[in-house]
Amino acid sequence: MEGEVNLRGYSLKEIMREATYADGAFLAIAGRVPTPEERRLIDAILNSLLDHGYVASTITAARYIASGNPQFIPAVAGGILAAGSNTLSPEHSYGLLERTRELRGDGTLEDGAERIVEEYVSTKRRLPGFGHPTHKTSDFRADILFDLADELGLAGESITQFQLIHKAFVRRTGKSNIPINIDGALAAIGRDLGLSANQTVAFAVLSVLPGLMAHVIEEIETGRPLRYIQDGEYVGMPMTKHLATSKSTTTLIGA
Amino acid sequence: MEGEVNLRGYSLKEIMREATYADGAFLAIAGRVPTPEERRLIDAILNSLLDHGYVASTITAARYIASGNPQFIPAVAGGILAAGSNTLSPEHSYGLLERTRELRGDGTLEDGAERIVEEYVSTKRRLPGFGHPTHKTSDFRADILFDLADELGLAGESITQFQLIHKAFVRRTGKSNIPINIDGALAAIGRDLGLSANQTVAFAVLSVLPGLMAHVIEEIETGRPLRYIQDGEYVGMPMTKHLATSKSTTTLIGA
Amino acid sequence: MEGEVNLRGYSLKEIMREATYADGAFLAIAGRVPTPEERRLIDAILNSLLDHGYVASTITAARYIASGNPQFIPAVAGGILAAGSNTLSPEHSYGLLERTRELRGDGTLEDGAERIVEEYVSTKRRLPGFGHPTHKTSDFRADILFDLADELGLAGESITQFQLIHKAFVRRTGKSNIPINIDGALAAIGRDLGLSANQTVAFAVLSVLPGLMAHVIEEIETGRPLRYIQDGEYVGMPMTKHLATSKSTTTLIGA
Amino acid sequence: MEGEVNLRGYSLKEIMREATYADGAFLAIAGRVPTPEERRLIDAILNSLLDHGYVASTITAARYIASGNPQFIPAVAGGILAAGSNTLSPEHSYGLLERTRELRGDGTLEDGAERIVEEYVSTKRRLPGFGHPTHKTSDFRADILFDLADELGLAGESITQFQLIHKAFVRRTGKSNIPINIDGALAAIGRDLGLSANQTVAFAVLSVLPGLMAHVIEEIETGRPLRYIQDGEYVGMPMTKHLATSKSTTTLIGA
Repeated sequence: MEGEVNLRGYSLKEIMREATYADGAFLAIAGRVPTPEERRLIDAILNSLLDHGYVASTITAARYIASGNPQFIPAVAGGILAAGSNTLSPEHSYGLLERTRELRGDGTLEDGAERIVEEYVSTKRRLPGFGHPTHKTSDFRADILFDLADELGLAGESITQFQLIHKAFVRRTGKSNIPINIDGALAAIGRDLGLSANQTVAFAVLSVLPGLMAHVIEEIETGRPLRYIQDGEYVGMPMTKHLATSKSTTTLIGA
Repeated sequence: MEGEVNLRGYSLKEIMREATYADGAFLAIAGRVPTPEERRLIDAILNSLLDHGYVASTITAARYIASGNPQFIPAVAGGILAAGSNTLSPEHSYGLLERTRELRGDGTLEDGAERIVEEYVSTKRRLPGFGHPTHKTSDFRADILFDLADELGLAGESITQFQLIHKAFVRRTGKSNIPINIDGALAAIGRDLGLSANQTVAFAVLSVLPGLMAHVIEEIETGRPLRYIQDGEYVGMPMTKHLATSKSTTTLIGA
Repeated sequence: MEGEVNLRGYSLKEIMREATYADGAFLAIAGRVPTPEERRLIDAILNSLLDHGYVASTITAARYIASGNPQFIPAVAGGILAAGSNTLSPEHSYGLLERTRELRGDGTLEDGAERIVEEYVSTKRRLPGFGHPTHKTSDFRADILFDLADELGLAGESITQFQLIHKAFVRRTGKSNIPINIDGALAAIGRDLGLSANQTVAFAVLSVLPGLMAHVIEEIETGRPLRYIQDGEYVGMPMTKHLATSKSTTTLIGA
Repeated sequence: MEGEVNLRGYSLKEIMREATYADGAFLAIAGRVPTPEERRLIDAILNSLLDHGYVASTITAARYIASGNPQFIPAVAGGILAAGSNTLSPEHSYGLLERTRELRGDGTLEDGAERIVEEYVSTKRRLPGFGHPTHKTSDFRADILFDLADELGLAGESITQFQLIHKAFVRRTGKSNIPINIDGALAAIGRDLGLSANQTVAFAVLSVLPGLMAHVIEEIETGRPLRYIQDGEYVGMPMTKHLATSKSTTTLIGA
């Protein structure tokens, strides 16, 4: 019927009139309306990466795109493309939790933590969800999300598991300056909320977008055209070669 | 200081603990915290395009990308790229309002409406912000946003101007089945909230994303690999040509 | 010096005046000028996916993007994003060859073929580089590339290995209608040319682009605005739910 | 028929076996096989932007994307998105030629040049296709393309017109250090080859891609993860604000 849009069983009219974006986004992505406690936690998640910072690859990529092509849409899309294994990727921490679950078997959460740390440390792999270039002792965004989940009664097994992995890691390596970072926290909380890995990434992307969009708009409105790096230089071999030898033989077909 | 992130003068800690996403996104994009009334309207805006629909170019493009490359990030970025002059582009309606302001000069809003409609109709151009392929008599999303703006005391000159343009259009053309659509409503309301054109687009994109993300996840999890159109066919000329004549002369250099 | 650009040791002036694109692209990507025989094979590679077809995810995604946002650049970029594990991804076939090399150890190429097929078939995984939705008995593009590599004296161990894997697969499964496809051929030939996996993908993308670009231009120039699928429908639950239970707590403003 | 792909009337088999990429790309994009002279010019066009340089927005954007998300496809797509009004956009120079044609009417090419320069200079707009940040007295890539077009007998009215516009510009402004740049040359030559504006952009994008792809691969293989700008800083207002005034109304939960 005209004038009716069905969003997973709810009327879009009602959602527009009565729900917050945390409600609407969770309904669209996770398929259900959040409880009031979940809504509060979702808002905190959605605000956790609001200022992803000028230094992030996502932001910088977006600004360079806007510098060459001063349009909003391509720059925002391009900035999102920088989300991957090195930044803004809670799916890797989520995978860590799933692998821990496998290794744990019938064991305790502590057993799971010991085993996953052993698996990574013994093969010299970096554990996803830990460490940050500027937040050395703790990532306050992760801490706030964990605190809130606790206060709201939403902390579950995944959060506990992630914190136990951290403890096992410190014990095993002696490194105390590698805290759980925001990606790790998002993965653990997302899993405790019943989200899949991709659904968790969805909320991370929504969180980073307003800041990214603000940077793009600033670049378009105030950036100098054709921004480029002046102190970088592509260093290769000296220009001493010539095509000469291949020249006489470029007679492609049937020559 | 570690553990402090400054978002336009506010502490991210405080924002995470106390603000909703409507607050945080508006602060990041528009540079200020919304009033309670504005927050309600922003939530409605942010929910207005939640189910942009399977039929939209954005959604379909994203699903095809995920069909070939079943990863979340590229498909979401690619879906956003479909936002442009034919869909999800309140900036064109925003531009209509700016052009109306110019044409109006010292005249009344009615004068502005008459002049902009004359300018478009006399040159047979389509007015942006009007009409929708499935919502023929009215676009309920636009109606709700206008009603809410009114109820919350946030309706300003831009909304009035857009509605007057619609009346002038119906008067001039006799066409009553071309209502103000959601793009038009978003432009008028965004302008009344003090947003720029790109800032208005930012909220439209945030609104469409949860639905788009849900489609991408569904495509990745349940879609058949390599979706393709079966009843379409690229019809060209029959395959009767040959490279023969150019063959003997492909001796590129120094031949 | 002004007027000089050094491309991996060569003067861009000389390249512009004397080299073909196959030369220039191979120099930029692989770091050396191809031999005449390599040049011929590279041109064949670069032409092998010219008409990737209307049915491909890359093309369809690009057309939907252009349908909503009729601009050349975003649609071309978006089409490329559809290249992934289900289409246009020789890197997966390349990885198969690398895994085969590991399994082979000191054994013969036949041993490698037996072992990799066993590994995939016993775990019911699909072998990358084999099969095509429309080319059932053979993929002529793969055949031509293999023939040309042979004629030009450029067929190496990777091609032989891939063909042996195919034979071992047919022997093991009895399935004879799953030929080596173009992705598999590109991977084997790329590896024999000394290219890395990503370098091989680079040539595949360059090959698909002219066709993709032609589709985008056709969509922009002749496509109807806002193309959407009419016979598809997003089927979900009936719209019978209400926010009621959470409503009393959604007291966002003026609570 | 299986084993046959029809590309604008030609058999893909024949194209793979006998044609160069310049042939195949021109056939796909422009719809016809080039003459030998055209092929030579197309190869020069396709090589003209091979080393677009580290400083270009396209390259830098692509590297930042690869730094966060070390995958080939998203970074290449994102780099293309930076092509726009400030870089890699011959369509704007092409538009200049079309506007000149309008202004010229029944006049001479000199008349057209005078009128377009007058239109731009009197409104203080920058003429597209002129000037370059590092090539001050001449853009050798433009010069080579013009020379080649001349030598090959392919220089037509558009090249002459563009050169006359340059002369009229120098005469009108006295500025002699703003040469015709590569975008201007590509537009003029593309138009003389019978290409549309988008078709001309297609060749420019193909030309820039091998260099861009090489940068992406280098970034993935040797770049440090999560590249970020260290000497840049986002300077905003001091963090002195509080949500306090709106706090009492942000009673989201349990209100």
